[in-house]
Amino acid sequence: MSFRASVLTLYPDMFPGALGMSLAGRGLEAGAWSIETVQIRDFATDRHRTVDDTPAGGGAGMVLRADILASAIDHASPAGDQRPRLLMSPRGKPLTQARVRELAQGPGAVIVCGRFEGVDQRVIEARDLEEVSIGDYILSGGEPAALVLLDAIVRLLPGVMGNDESGTEESFENGLLEHPHYTRPQLFEDRPIPEVLTSGNHARIAQWRHQTALELTQMRRPDLLPAAPGKKEPGNR
Amino acid sequence: MSFRASVLTLYPDMFPGALGMSLAGRGLEAGAWSIETVQIRDFATDRHRTVDDTPAGGGAGMVLRADILASAIDHASPAGDQRPRLLMSPRGKPLTQARVRELAQGPGAVIVCGRFEGVDQRVIEARDLEEVSIGDYILSGGEPAALVLLDAIVRLLPGVMGNDESGTEESFENGLLEHPHYTRPQLFEDRPIPEVLTSGNHARIAQWRHQTALELTQMRRPDLLPAAPGKKEPGNR
Repeated sequence: MSFRASVLTLYPDMFPGALGMSLAGRGLEAGAWSIETVQIRDFATDRHRTVDDTPAGGGAGMVLRADILASAIDHASPAGDQRPRLLMSPRGKPLTQARVRELAQGPGAVIVCGRFEGVDQRVIEARDLEEVSIGDYILSGGEPAALVLLDAIVRLLPGVMGNDESGTEESFENGLLEHPHYTRPQLFEDRPIPEVLTSGNHARIAQWRHQTALELTQMRRPDLLPAAPGKKEPGNR
Repeated sequence: MSFRASVLTLYPDMFPGALGMSLAGRGLEAGAWSIETVQIRDFATDRHRTVDDTPAGGGAGMVLRADILASAIDHASPAGDQRPRLLMSPRGKPLTQARVRELAQGPGAVIVCGRFEGVDQRVIEARDLEEVSIGDYILSGGEPAALVLLDAIVRLLPGVMGNDESGTEESFENGLLEHPHYTRPQLFEDRPIPEVLTSGNHARIAQWRHQTALELTQMRRPDLLPAAPGKKEPGNR
């Protein structure tokens, strides 16, 4: 059974978007994964198809109603659905590559895209929504975040990634930022490829890559280091 | 002069994508911002239009060539262009709302979307590319990240955000995760709106919101707290 995504949104036309092209798009066509969108507005109960209302206690913006979103969730994810229910939200737990890998190994995901000022807290609790944040910035809605989450998941699904994109030796997969890359031409605007990389000495190359990755991580992301495998020998991936 | 984005990509059809709809799309139509795509492949020099080559020193994947990408950058961003040149990359500095705000106040951005295993380090240095990471996970390429970055920027541009989406009181804008939201109906599946929010007592409401925001941040994101305004009184936004 392939990975099955259900996306609840007020903008179903945003999907599959970029996920219909390139790697993810070929995987979609080949049946490595599937996506359905659910228009939250279809579950509104008034003739204006209203989905939001003013925040209790006052304040700016509008809040997505619990009852309407619950109906949409119950439609997309009936009793017995084993897929996790995610809510894209800057209040959520930060997305990590480890969580992406877990999700990719599961049956799929029900992804709720919020809009407006937020979503009524009661539907988050009553439907056990896992709030997921893709980063510390604010988007116009959950849709761009859902596209990112799905892209990260889909590239890990069996049959999606080609030989050109191996994914074995990448950032975060070994706890460090990735070492610099070089390719032909040998000389670019008076800048040569570092000599070590053309030496043919595989042990030296592995050591150089580990060292540059470590230095880059120390400089840019010291926060990653406590979790990094400190005693790892270069080259033993 | 409105915000001008140039996106360098192998998949120009991915743009404007979701950015052509909703808030961002209306802003695009109204001229609040503009986007052009540059097909990196147009700057290849062989008849197969090759843009990548094998990594110097060996290893998996392919590397985007420095010379070809440099030509594309020089075309999109000629001498005198004041816009920052960004490279979407998991090796980059994590994107923050503060950086989004800075970018939104500037003339625009030249955004390079990497694919494959990476980009030749020499073009990053020679063209002074600022590596930007939207989070600690791996995408199929820079395109979904560029869509997220632009969405975050565009919603801050003058004339883009309507009254329904005020953006004044949101996560990260005050250093804390946002308090829970509630709206009608008063009772949802036996869950009432917290009494304080319907009390009409604005001071108590502000205090409750500050307290719940603080508790949520302590529970989910203690890493955000040192930067939070600790002595801030509730209600004095």
